[in-house]
Amino acid sequence: MARFFVSPDEIQSDFMVLTGDNAAHAKVLRLKCGEKVTVSDGSGRECVCTVSDVSPGQISLVVDTISDSKTEAAVQVSVFMAFAKGDKLEHVIQKATELGAYEIIAFPSARCVSRPDAKSLVKKVERWQKIAASAAEQSGRGRIPTVHTVDSYKEALSCAAKADTAILFYENEKATTLKMALQEKPYRSVSLLTGPEGGLEPSEVKEAMACGLKVCTLGSRILRCETAPLCALSAVMYDSGEF
Amino acid sequence: MARFFVSPDEIQSDFMVLTGDNAAHAKVLRLKCGEKVTVSDGSGRECVCTVSDVSPGQISLVVDTISDSKTEAAVQVSVFMAFAKGDKLEHVIQKATELGAYEIIAFPSARCVSRPDAKSLVKKVERWQKIAASAAEQSGRGRIPTVHTVDSYKEALSCAAKADTAILFYENEKATTLKMALQEKPYRSVSLLTGPEGGLEPSEVKEAMACGLKVCTLGSRILRCETAPLCALSAVMYDSGEF
Repeated sequence: MARFFVSPDEIQSDFMVLTGDNAAHAKVLRLKCGEKVTVSDGSGRECVCTVSDVSPGQISLVVDTISDSKTEAAVQVSVFMAFAKGDKLEHVIQKATELGAYEIIAFPSARCVSRPDAKSLVKKVERWQKIAASAAEQSGRGRIPTVHTVDSYKEALSCAAKADTAILFYENEKATTLKMALQEKPYRSVSLLTGPEGGLEPSEVKEAMACGLKVCTLGSRILRCETAPLCALSAVMYDSGEF
Repeated sequence: MARFFVSPDEIQSDFMVLTGDNAAHAKVLRLKCGEKVTVSDGSGRECVCTVSDVSPGQISLVVDTISDSKTEAAVQVSVFMAFAKGDKLEHVIQKATELGAYEIIAFPSARCVSRPDAKSLVKKVERWQKIAASAAEQSGRGRIPTVHTVDSYKEALSCAAKADTAILFYENEKATTLKMALQEKPYRSVSLLTGPEGGLEPSEVKEAMACGLKVCTLGSRILRCETAPLCALSAVMYDSGEF
């Protein structure tokens, strides 16, 4: 079933109209009267609707049912990823959205080679949010993960520490596994923090521990900076009973 | 520590020489006398060596110790992925190697849009094997996963079924999770089979069940064909105690 995102105030209990990009998308899909579609407010509420009229630039819908989305993960996972070169963040945003991440936060750290300035960041975040929206649509999610940035590593740590379980992955940690960290106590929210291409500095790891983050290994193989967050996210979703 | 792969017959107990691509790579790394390197036979045996001489096209090494690799996963995971468009298989081969896959097998299925002919497959497999070798080197693996193809879906199923636990992921399966399948019995080898962009046909899923594969879900969100195998592989590595 095709899925469209509208703003929460556009969700109505009886009739709705798709316009703009949604109408253009509906045209590409060649939607016809009588077909069923899902319309989501991007925050977890969604309607199943029947197409009642197709006009240029406007698709009319009759609302059949409204309910909470059934495709959102029970656990809220926040993915904290250091700024990385090339299109690695785009890649992680797309995949993390499919895998059910609640939000993705990009942050600067000591060894980041990529250091976008404030002006280019505004454009980047806009682009990243579009990637998340498109991946949410394709994967059938009821919520579009928010993508944002923080100005400092310190700020990333203090945001990450708010979760029930906050974890930093470090290649020099050999003893504490993700499984140990997750089994310590029940969790409804998890933060996963990973470093840039060159890794995190030992002083940054210490700083994270002081903020209450647990330092864990992702195994004996060195994962690229775009592989680590997705591996960890998959494992948390598995651990929390998603599949 | 830099890592080089040589053929098993080149591994010696006292002295070794790096030539060809390895010597070129050593030059890029600006290796100097006295530095330590790891030389692996790509099958799980590796030596720690000290550079004793650097000449153009030839690096001489003194072997310090020989041992079994400590970075190979305890569980052997075979990733069966249907032929996919663009560079998706390349992507999965690189990431699955980092994540510790034992082998990657590409296969044709009914809805595959990409259907490389025998001639182009020879070139592709050669290229894929190089991607695996390079990812194995970067991630510090002691073994290069083998990448191969099978001629039919039937053959993929009969290969996959040889593992202790063989699993096919299907988006229409709602009840059986990967966790249920893995908890049924202890496993030392696992096959993970995923479909192409358009998914597997219901008849193909039935055929797999008849061959002894368990049909599982990867959660309520629809994963892209390049995301599903890596998500499943991460979960199996987590479940088997790798991290």
